[in-house]
Amino acid sequence: MGAVVVQDIERADPKVIAGLAAAGVATVHEAQGRTGCLASHMRPIWAGAQVAGSAVTISAPPGDNWMLHVAIEQVREGDILVLAPTSPCDNGYFGDLLATSAMARGCRGLVIDAGVRDVRDLTAMGFPVWSKAISAQGTVKATLGSVNVPVVCAGQAVNPGDVVVADDDGVVVVPRAAAAEVLAAAEARLANEAAKRARLAAGELGLDMYQMREALAAKGLKYV
Amino acid sequence: MGAVVVQDIERADPKVIAGLAAAGVATVHEAQGRTGCLASHMRPIWAGAQVAGSAVTISAPPGDNWMLHVAIEQVREGDILVLAPTSPCDNGYFGDLLATSAMARGCRGLVIDAGVRDVRDLTAMGFPVWSKAISAQGTVKATLGSVNVPVVCAGQAVNPGDVVVADDDGVVVVPRAAAAEVLAAAEARLANEAAKRARLAAGELGLDMYQMREALAAKGLKYV
Amino acid sequence: MGAVVVQDIERADPKVIAGLAAAGVATVHEAQGRTGCLASHMRPIWAGAQVAGSAVTISAPPGDNWMLHVAIEQVREGDILVLAPTSPCDNGYFGDLLATSAMARGCRGLVIDAGVRDVRDLTAMGFPVWSKAISAQGTVKATLGSVNVPVVCAGQAVNPGDVVVADDDGVVVVPRAAAAEVLAAAEARLANEAAKRARLAAGELGLDMYQMREALAAKGLKYV
Amino acid sequence: MGAVVVQDIERADPKVIAGLAAAGVATVHEAQGRTGCLASHMRPIWAGAQVAGSAVTISAPPGDNWMLHVAIEQVREGDILVLAPTSPCDNGYFGDLLATSAMARGCRGLVIDAGVRDVRDLTAMGFPVWSKAISAQGTVKATLGSVNVPVVCAGQAVNPGDVVVADDDGVVVVPRAAAAEVLAAAEARLANEAAKRARLAAGELGLDMYQMREALAAKGLKYV
Amino acid sequence: MGAVVVQDIERADPKVIAGLAAAGVATVHEAQGRTGCLASHMRPIWAGAQVAGSAVTISAPPGDNWMLHVAIEQVREGDILVLAPTSPCDNGYFGDLLATSAMARGCRGLVIDAGVRDVRDLTAMGFPVWSKAISAQGTVKATLGSVNVPVVCAGQAVNPGDVVVADDDGVVVVPRAAAAEVLAAAEARLANEAAKRARLAAGELGLDMYQMREALAAKGLKYV
Amino acid sequence: MGAVVVQDIERADPKVIAGLAAAGVATVHEAQGRTGCLASHMRPIWAGAQVAGSAVTISAPPGDNWMLHVAIEQVREGDILVLAPTSPCDNGYFGDLLATSAMARGCRGLVIDAGVRDVRDLTAMGFPVWSKAISAQGTVKATLGSVNVPVVCAGQAVNPGDVVVADDDGVVVVPRAAAAEVLAAAEARLANEAAKRARLAAGELGLDMYQMREALAAKGLKYV
Repeated sequence: MGAVVVQDIERADPKVIAGLAAAGVATVHEAQGRTGCLASHMRPIWAGAQVAGSAVTISAPPGDNWMLHVAIEQVREGDILVLAPTSPCDNGYFGDLLATSAMARGCRGLVIDAGVRDVRDLTAMGFPVWSKAISAQGTVKATLGSVNVPVVCAGQAVNPGDVVVADDDGVVVVPRAAAAEVLAAAEARLANEAAKRARLAAGELGLDMYQMREALAAKGLKYV
Repeated sequence: MGAVVVQDIERADPKVIAGLAAAGVATVHEAQGRTGCLASHMRPIWAGAQVAGSAVTISAPPGDNWMLHVAIEQVREGDILVLAPTSPCDNGYFGDLLATSAMARGCRGLVIDAGVRDVRDLTAMGFPVWSKAISAQGTVKATLGSVNVPVVCAGQAVNPGDVVVADDDGVVVVPRAAAAEVLAAAEARLANEAAKRARLAAGELGLDMYQMREALAAKGLKYV
Repeated sequence: MGAVVVQDIERADPKVIAGLAAAGVATVHEAQGRTGCLASHMRPIWAGAQVAGSAVTISAPPGDNWMLHVAIEQVREGDILVLAPTSPCDNGYFGDLLATSAMARGCRGLVIDAGVRDVRDLTAMGFPVWSKAISAQGTVKATLGSVNVPVVCAGQAVNPGDVVVADDDGVVVVPRAAAAEVLAAAEARLANEAAKRARLAAGELGLDMYQMREALAAKGLKYV
Repeated sequence: MGAVVVQDIERADPKVIAGLAAAGVATVHEAQGRTGCLASHMRPIWAGAQVAGSAVTISAPPGDNWMLHVAIEQVREGDILVLAPTSPCDNGYFGDLLATSAMARGCRGLVIDAGVRDVRDLTAMGFPVWSKAISAQGTVKATLGSVNVPVVCAGQAVNPGDVVVADDDGVVVVPRAAAAEVLAAAEARLANEAAKRARLAAGELGLDMYQMREALAAKGLKYV
Repeated sequence: MGAVVVQDIERADPKVIAGLAAAGVATVHEAQGRTGCLASHMRPIWAGAQVAGSAVTISAPPGDNWMLHVAIEQVREGDILVLAPTSPCDNGYFGDLLATSAMARGCRGLVIDAGVRDVRDLTAMGFPVWSKAISAQGTVKATLGSVNVPVVCAGQAVNPGDVVVADDDGVVVVPRAAAAEVLAAAEARLANEAAKRARLAAGELGLDMYQMREALAAKGLKYV
Repeated sequence: MGAVVVQDIERADPKVIAGLAAAGVATVHEAQGRTGCLASHMRPIWAGAQVAGSAVTISAPPGDNWMLHVAIEQVREGDILVLAPTSPCDNGYFGDLLATSAMARGCRGLVIDAGVRDVRDLTAMGFPVWSKAISAQGTVKATLGSVNVPVVCAGQAVNPGDVVVADDDGVVVVPRAAAAEVLAAAEARLANEAAKRARLAAGELGLDMYQMREALAAKGLKYV
């Protein structure tokens, strides 16, 4: 298949993307039928960011960040870079210079199943990253990979243009074609939660609010 | 044995529990003969909490949080929920709605050898959690487990009503029957530490303060 | 070979050490040819410290912190303790009392491929630690090790007197004899980065600034 | 999307599948451009099997093997079951009874990013399995999953009907549409290897046979 | 509590123990309600052993095998040594000399959540071991532990005299008091399996044999 | 420092190397003061090999096996290749063609803190490998490393010409200069073991043979 850069990818509606960002990872994940979460080793390098964007995907060799430079040219306002190494690697592929360049293109963040470095600078710049590792170990620029091809990142298939949502709970991917429908389900869910929260805060039990007692008894739960 | 909920558990004296919370994990662990620490993968989702409480234990299947709803009904003021999955799992069993409900019952925190989610909300609510993972991956409510039975959580046996102490160093469990004795030993230890700290701060060496030189020489340590 | 304490070690020039601290881990690592990074599991217990110092090395048995007391006597102003257990261990070898003592000797920090405890106190004291784990699990004082011998810590060979640089990106070790040369290379690198950062911030692409397009095409990268 | 069983999947030409089995994992992986290898934690439960077959995929909840029973009905002669749990799990989803049933349907093996049990029986039966774990820990039958939908298994996207090749080196997946082309490339590679092997056995160096000396010198390799 | 050796422990009926050995780990685990499996990292050092015996438990410090010598004196014909380190450790606590001594006392095997060595000798001797690691790294004899106290080994609570069953699937522990009842359930299960195996081998589907179709449809499974 | 190949390395006396091979890993490790064991994740790809040889070391980038070709030219009869990647990597750096070439040069085996492939062929050829992983994932030939420089492999410093001993217990490294002395200590140890083994086999307890009872009592061990 060779090394390719796909230049024209479709993206979801920016309003839908904004709605998914506002809903957050846990809600979006539930709204699409409990699918799409990246592995729990993907952690934010600083707390508090909550973003969504269109995936510009990168398939890169272990220890080689050349394709990040190629990918940044493909970034448009509102995109999120998603890098999947072709085998497990914790090197620091990305630091403050690449972040400066990415931000200049309107990039909203990086999701990388490998390492990053310059985390103090990235934090000061407000550039959010979800990664497997933090490592100063540098990379080379010797071997090609691809940009905007389907990848598997941290256990999830990500296609270019899919919507990536990320916050302190981790990262979830929403297939581009399903984004509007997932947003509708997420918003319905959120509307529902405020009322539940108030009832639980007032001391009502989930056992009663969700009417679980009968099902538990039918399954054979014994109180002793 | 089947799925059971034990409703009547004994708890330690609240004053003893408060004393153990004040002493903190490292001191309590030493005071009971260097036993009781949960595995080091149990980390707080936010820094700074230091609590102790009576364990309400939960044995739950992987990927199924039904028993958390059952357990919350058993919580009394001052309890801590302790969840052990029956096999390794990093799913997010617990989020802001369950925390709201648990807090309404007086719950002081959650210790879970699995994942939690909504960590930004949990942090804002001041609800402390010590967990193996942070993950938005949701769970089902399909299979029974048990509440207030003996469990093994992160490598330690925990019985319902045992005192769980948790802070930024992790989590330690104190058998209920030993709690008063452990507190006494912890307080003796603390009384002793202030004087030691002052001497060390003044430049006295541990080698001298603890009179280690002779034992080291006897073992054969050579200075070259 | 037996258990030894080497008392007289050579150290690098304090000005060079200060320069390396200012350059930071990622830059120093690149400046010495992308070598010397400790494994990425070595994380700071609190964010924001950036230090360098001369390594006082410790080879210690698993679960035994006796040699830390011995090592502290060997610390001079500006040193960093580097502890390598002789087999994998996550016990909490070091806490606030040892930190008090180390600080009284002018110690700038601890790098330990094992665990530490009292992390809230260590944070409040401003004593920086890079470790594999945080654990309250205590250690014994029963078996000898050595101080100021060559060790392998988190995958890197460290000799006594080598310069250890540590910040939020992790830890890098610089051989003592190479320190001045590495500093020169690091400073040249830093001088170069400000200009690059400005160009990238202005929207210039790395592809153009680093003149990568030709090499990528020669390797066969296809744009589609 | 809900839980579905796709009953009609396309499969590759049996002759192509047989050819890929004969070529083996490493050769097939190279022949398709070094792609498609599942993670290295996927190990055979017994040594010596070398198979290929059409993937019947299973997406299953953690700790729940209900969908395996559903999937076996979909198996045709020459298929391989591929199970991906929806979150990390090491439970023993599969044992000798399921293997008996699968073999009766012509199933050639199981690839599972989770655990299996009854491994002595499976070995005696000659039923090959590549798994993440061996565990007697049983599963429930309570929650739906899907059969013959796209999954990510051990880091690779697998579509129903893709060709799965497995041997002592692990597992590789070949997209169904590419199977014939990959086989041709694999056979060309194999034809080439015998001659190389003979030259290397005779003492010729790879440096000479592959004409690497000039490129190494150009990159700056120094002999000292 | 201090370091103790409990000399008089109760053991289960040897005939029951023999029955549990014959049933094997997976069956015993199911027969006691899917409980008691040790973590899946506990693997046999050689394939084919299938044993059961009474647990002589050992709580030992990391890197210190002194208590193994103490424990061997407590072994009676038919016992299995169960060693749990007080914190994670992969050292080789046990080799051919200790095995010679243990076999001379009638010991049937070792279950150790740490490492062993001399595995070629142990294999030749026919002494079975289930361990977390194989490592030549030796241990010291400097710090006390305890023998025949309750321990947690690889995630399961084990009491002295409990029945430990181990085979190629791993290790399961049966509380002594429940052993006879569990054996009865295991034998009922086994009696049942032969018939099932024959029907499945004849091509009957589990979906039909276990009458799952209706429940699957009720849950909403769709065939497309 | 750049990429170098050191062509002239000193090796230990072949008779000493043969003696160390005969002694085996565990004995050699004890004989040199319990030092030198590589991490326990280094496992043989087939059981039963027991070898020693002079280390020809390789420092290689992640996912790049170019330096293996370079290193094979440096191999003399009786050498063992030792490859340390510069960051964690599980790729299959080595397969049957490289083994054919290495064997033609008299190479006795490979120790690699990464992956290998073609393990069925390597087994049939009788070429022993100790590795971290088995993986078909291929590597590139794009970036230089070094041959016969000091490396850290699986946690141990290895210098070119050091003696590497490997068997089913793992791998130990003996500094070249110490090899004769370590062999003498190992042989003394072995001479001693036969007598001990006979006494233990006859039922004598280690407690008595090693005269441990008094020391245990002095430490406070209580029999109850």
